[in-house]
Amino acid sequence: MLKILIRPSTELYIGRNLLTTDRLLEFCGKLRTILIADVAIKDLYAVDLARKIHAELLTIPTGEKAKSRETEQNLIDELFKMGCGRDTLLIALGGGVTTDLVGFVASVYMRGVPLILIPTTLLAIVDAAIGGKTAIDTPYGKNLIGTIYSPKAIFADLDTLRTLPEKEWLNGFAEILKMGLIYDSSIWQKKGVKNDELILKAVQGKIAIVEQDPTELGFRRILNFGHTIGHAIEAISQYEMPHGEAVALGCVLEAHLSMHLGYLSERDFEQILGSFSSFPLRLPKNCTRQNLFNAMVYDKKNASGKVRFVLIDRIGHAISFEGQYCRPVSEKELKATFEWMKNN
Amino acid sequence: MLKILIRPSTELYIGRNLLTTDRLLEFCGKLRTILIADVAIKDLYAVDLARKIHAELLTIPTGEKAKSRETEQNLIDELFKMGCGRDTLLIALGGGVTTDLVGFVASVYMRGVPLILIPTTLLAIVDAAIGGKTAIDTPYGKNLIGTIYSPKAIFADLDTLRTLPEKEWLNGFAEILKMGLIYDSSIWQKKGVKNDELILKAVQGKIAIVEQDPTELGFRRILNFGHTIGHAIEAISQYEMPHGEAVALGCVLEAHLSMHLGYLSERDFEQILGSFSSFPLRLPKNCTRQNLFNAMVYDKKNASGKVRFVLIDRIGHAISFEGQYCRPVSEKELKATFEWMKNN
Repeated sequence: MLKILIRPSTELYIGRNLLTTDRLLEFCGKLRTILIADVAIKDLYAVDLARKIHAELLTIPTGEKAKSRETEQNLIDELFKMGCGRDTLLIALGGGVTTDLVGFVASVYMRGVPLILIPTTLLAIVDAAIGGKTAIDTPYGKNLIGTIYSPKAIFADLDTLRTLPEKEWLNGFAEILKMGLIYDSSIWQKKGVKNDELILKAVQGKIAIVEQDPTELGFRRILNFGHTIGHAIEAISQYEMPHGEAVALGCVLEAHLSMHLGYLSERDFEQILGSFSSFPLRLPKNCTRQNLFNAMVYDKKNASGKVRFVLIDRIGHAISFEGQYCRPVSEKELKATFEWMKNN
Repeated sequence: MLKILIRPSTELYIGRNLLTTDRLLEFCGKLRTILIADVAIKDLYAVDLARKIHAELLTIPTGEKAKSRETEQNLIDELFKMGCGRDTLLIALGGGVTTDLVGFVASVYMRGVPLILIPTTLLAIVDAAIGGKTAIDTPYGKNLIGTIYSPKAIFADLDTLRTLPEKEWLNGFAEILKMGLIYDSSIWQKKGVKNDELILKAVQGKIAIVEQDPTELGFRRILNFGHTIGHAIEAISQYEMPHGEAVALGCVLEAHLSMHLGYLSERDFEQILGSFSSFPLRLPKNCTRQNLFNAMVYDKKNASGKVRFVLIDRIGHAISFEGQYCRPVSEKELKATFEWMKNN
């Protein structure tokens, strides 16, 4: 078990067999504890864990559609009905939907209650659970409502990944590859291996990036690589397309854009394209250049109504653009990339 | 005009003729600016101000009932529809309902956009706008959902109070008297005067308290004096009773409780009772000891299911209780205070 401190105030525990130790129980202390998990994970881990840590168990629906205002309100109302005070500890057990949603609820319930995250998917371990971002979705796009809120602790137990379906592996793997593209080329070199070392590298990369820029004023934006197009594609597919597939496609298209705009070599681009070959890399059927561009209008990086992209100039390095780490791209500049995708 | 820095990052401007200067315009800079006001204040100030600072104007309904999830969602959806990005400045113009609600929206819209508050009621100037608390109400009680979020600036223009109805004066005056009871006895000595000095003292008192304890772990709780009962009474009256009347009644009853529990002298209590004589001091007709106690169960100070009260031991001084600044009070201990009220 490795313990990493994430500024300002989160203890991250990562390793194996974490949930069988008493470390989590010590965090609960004398606090009233509510464990929140989706219905799919309930019987897998949640019931046993709740018993072990003397927590009350609440369940939420499964899937991205659960990350809604409706689920948020139901959860908050449930906490009110249970008479939960400000000294109630909320523990989120599950994937990114659960950690994002419960994180948001913890940040606004009575203006903030203590929070612990137990991510159980590769995507949540390497991405969603780290960095203090919470979110819910709206019909206007993903993660458009949220807060920055530090959990007391994160328990990333890699043993929970044993039961993870292949599709879920790919979801997380896309984020690991992205980390290799924007920040740590050593990840890129080792990317064939599904092992703990690779996961740890991705986690450490994310921590290093968010600690440099906790509120996303500049450098942290590089984490958005692949997500400007990725989020738009997810929205167009009405969230039918898995996040990892959308991000993989987004990474390839934004690497193409980086090449098309003259920053990235053709050789690097071809290597990137090859590395994402385990993903389907198909646009949703109803995706046109126009609705893709329209869907990107709600992207949070935008300024003065212009869509802004993170771009790379080599594998492992995002371009600074004078500390903005993104640049406006016009619909016209995007055209070639979209046409390339349509023809491949 | 006085400029006061409030940690961590808010500039407070307080004085007269503030809105006719260019200081506010300088804050807007090149940001897209949305001015949000309730329909009652729209024609009074908002249209002119929006024109002056080149802002787009959005309106919300009037009154405490507007501080709801519904108004919050409508406002957020309106911002989405307008294509507002993360670099949009929101300005709240109005009373505490508007500053609380718009503050909450600013804190969660795309995980936070810049915010400026222009409080236009005495209550908002001395209380709601200062301290970084945002909130919306739910059927379970007032301010139960919210965040801690610092505005860039607060413009407290005392000239806006010229049009304030007497009822609104009393709303703010109850908070000024409360500040005299818990913190600054010099306010208490000058309380007959409705003047700028008294307002400034109350503002400075609040700033000193919140800076010592921004996230309400201890000392800041003293601001809740009069509000444990006050909020419960408001809820029982279904928010028909003005906040100031409820707080005045809450202050008298919690002073009575302080006396009944042996902390406050009878002489101080009699003086306090006399000083609130400009308020009606009447319980809502449907208020029973049982529903009063039930309504306090959702109070945010509670711990382990016990209702906790801020208590005073003299005018101008709240009791520390080992840094908790509140203590549990049983239903039985509260009985005498309730009976006294019913018989007076």
